[in-house]
Amino acid sequence: MKLLNETHDPQLRSWVSSANDGGDFPIQNLPFAVFRRAGSGEAQRGGVAIGDQVLDMAAAAQTGLFEGPAQAAAQAAAQSSLNALMAMGAEASSALRLALSRALRHGAGARDKLQGCLLAQADVDYGLPCRIGDYTDFYTSIHHATAVGSLFRPDNPLLPNYKWVPIGYHGRASTIGVSGQTFPRPVGQTRAADAAEPSFGPSRRLDYELEMGIFIGRGTALGERIPIGEAERHVFGICLFNDWSARDIQAWEYQPLGPFLAKSFASTISPWIVTTEALAPYRVAFSRPPQDPQPLPYLSADFNSAHGGMDIHLQCLIQTEKMRADSEAATTLSRSNFRDSYWTVAQMVAHHSVNGCAMQPGDLLGSGTQSGPAHEQAGSILELTRGGKQPVTLPNGEQRIFLEDGDTIVMRGHCERDGAVRIGFGEVAATVLPARV
Amino acid sequence: MKLLNETHDPQLRSWVSSANDGGDFPIQNLPFAVFRRAGSGEAQRGGVAIGDQVLDMAAAAQTGLFEGPAQAAAQAAAQSSLNALMAMGAEASSALRLALSRALRHGAGARDKLQGCLLAQADVDYGLPCRIGDYTDFYTSIHHATAVGSLFRPDNPLLPNYKWVPIGYHGRASTIGVSGQTFPRPVGQTRAADAAEPSFGPSRRLDYELEMGIFIGRGTALGERIPIGEAERHVFGICLFNDWSARDIQAWEYQPLGPFLAKSFASTISPWIVTTEALAPYRVAFSRPPQDPQPLPYLSADFNSAHGGMDIHLQCLIQTEKMRADSEAATTLSRSNFRDSYWTVAQMVAHHSVNGCAMQPGDLLGSGTQSGPAHEQAGSILELTRGGKQPVTLPNGEQRIFLEDGDTIVMRGHCERDGAVRIGFGEVAATVLPARV
Repeated sequence: MKLLNETHDPQLRSWVSSANDGGDFPIQNLPFAVFRRAGSGEAQRGGVAIGDQVLDMAAAAQTGLFEGPAQAAAQAAAQSSLNALMAMGAEASSALRLALSRALRHGAGARDKLQGCLLAQADVDYGLPCRIGDYTDFYTSIHHATAVGSLFRPDNPLLPNYKWVPIGYHGRASTIGVSGQTFPRPVGQTRAADAAEPSFGPSRRLDYELEMGIFIGRGTALGERIPIGEAERHVFGICLFNDWSARDIQAWEYQPLGPFLAKSFASTISPWIVTTEALAPYRVAFSRPPQDPQPLPYLSADFNSAHGGMDIHLQCLIQTEKMRADSEAATTLSRSNFRDSYWTVAQMVAHHSVNGCAMQPGDLLGSGTQSGPAHEQAGSILELTRGGKQPVTLPNGEQRIFLEDGDTIVMRGHCERDGAVRIGFGEVAATVLPARV
Repeated sequence: MKLLNETHDPQLRSWVSSANDGGDFPIQNLPFAVFRRAGSGEAQRGGVAIGDQVLDMAAAAQTGLFEGPAQAAAQAAAQSSLNALMAMGAEASSALRLALSRALRHGAGARDKLQGCLLAQADVDYGLPCRIGDYTDFYTSIHHATAVGSLFRPDNPLLPNYKWVPIGYHGRASTIGVSGQTFPRPVGQTRAADAAEPSFGPSRRLDYELEMGIFIGRGTALGERIPIGEAERHVFGICLFNDWSARDIQAWEYQPLGPFLAKSFASTISPWIVTTEALAPYRVAFSRPPQDPQPLPYLSADFNSAHGGMDIHLQCLIQTEKMRADSEAATTLSRSNFRDSYWTVAQMVAHHSVNGCAMQPGDLLGSGTQSGPAHEQAGSILELTRGGKQPVTLPNGEQRIFLEDGDTIVMRGHCERDGAVRIGFGEVAATVLPARV
């Protein structure tokens, strides 16, 4: 598989000058979202980020600049959700990205026609990028699994299946929202460690989880299996994902069938979906420690070993209500990197479909919390506070054991390396409101 | 809440004579499905069962027979999926059922116009009744939970949360099909009890689960909670549901996050959705043994105590490939009753939404396997064979420990009682195909 093509050329510059300033959205990125003018009653439509602008695909598809497969993809990208574009497969989004790359380049003759299709990102509201049929959450960070496992099962932190099975579970699609989401603190049953009976009330152990969200592109029919060598052809792109979790509800409810109400109250994605194609310069080798079992053949492929990893820097920040009142910017809670995941995107897709489970365009896979090997790289506050035992102290003196009402959690991600252009994910931010009691 | 109305009058007879012969679909039932003429390229549309006929709602909505809320509901029922009808709430389907009841009665003047809107059920194919946004599976039979728990955890069959929490988990919507579904035997990882490492191949412990499927009607927004006293107003109706399960895949993958590939390869529903209104004559008191904890207040309501249970007779049958070749009808594996469920439909809905989880029209809740208190009332073959240890012998001498390729599982359900009219669910049948290897 040829990883790099013309769209990755680090020398490319855009006539949209803000795309050339080292931000998240250079001409080598071109991620997709769904948007409308802020506060307007306009129809939602697809857009592509370039610098600090959104290229309105509904308008761009009318310019006559594109033809053939690129025009077909542009028309799909102009719709109110990206499911149709996703369904067309990686070739279609690749053709569109190439056409957009050429049209947005410094000196391109398309500038006159496309200039009028740009809106400032500051002036738009984002919607969910697609109808998410099914959402699945994986558990691919062995560091997270070990840290959380030791809190829930001190005698048995990492279960025997972990190094064999890319563990995942079905999640709730109806409460996935886009960055800017707010939600009331969940209410439910919890049982204190020393209590004989459960009690009822707002969660007191509310947490975030720093994850990647992976959108399925071309789908499969029931009974069809996706070989790992083809798995990435079924991936449209990747976003940031906050899998909010109520740890006290989770601890009481999760056996034997897994997390349910502890997760289903809200989940938040970043608006921009970065295509796997744009991430090509940041693919890294993926390998197992020699003492660990090697993946079963259905989870193993040359491409996956050579390029299965993704070198994506992740950052999680908090802005409390007090910080907001004091006009203080969000402060960093932790940093990690998606390359430390124990299972790759291709392995998630191959595993998910091995039993014949139909995958549909727009299905979302969560990577699971991405915690790094060091304690301070934890992707949840449960881990940072060692199960609620050691508070985190913020620069303004506030402390957190779990999240409080009014807290905004912000997640950011980007790729950077000498000799390559920075590719960014933008951010996902969402805020906890008081419980409705 | 007034349970019975004019549509329940046991004296009512229909001018569709097959509705009066004691079958599943008398004029007191009037369940909804989505259908088209078998083998045709026609658009799907909603239909209502009456005797052995389907009333084509697309045609019926054009007759001018209905007005006001009933006509609005008829137009929604005419669409290719029932989501719009479901979204209108219980009042809308109730108004439509009353209008249909009057129009289909013996002696009704509507006969001339509606006669042409009937098709024989034998001549139609059914589709999924709606777009299922999210599917959740519960675990409401304490008999099943105890029996299965003792197989997976002999020392700890019923976990401490069971009598407090209506345990549920998110399931996979993309592989839910309607009666007639076929699917290849799932392939995946399993680990034998005495093996150090997992192996890969077709499941050898394939099972069915006898469940009810509950469709959500009017939805809720994120953050909104459904009080138990209002829970049934958010239920559109009920069908039969087979939650196929691969027990060997399940045993190896399910910890710590619950069943995943063991379930997501296929699930099958019966085509007809019986409204909760039609079930009113069969509501029964619901109570806890005095030695058990009483439900927390959010799971408790007078209506639920007085009428929360549903007296629905369930039957599970098998027809093997050999039986089919020998023209032998399906033979009964077990019988149970939904009234033995430890948690009610209202409790499932109230629990699901207590954390603010948005419920959407067309969401499906599985009840979990409905096993009765006696061993022979088990709703899965895992239980019937005591974990695969005691084969079931069929009348033709064939034996089953788990399901074999070519086996068709049929589930039926109905309500009957002296002095009331039988209300039936029809059936759900689906067949295991060989694994694709």
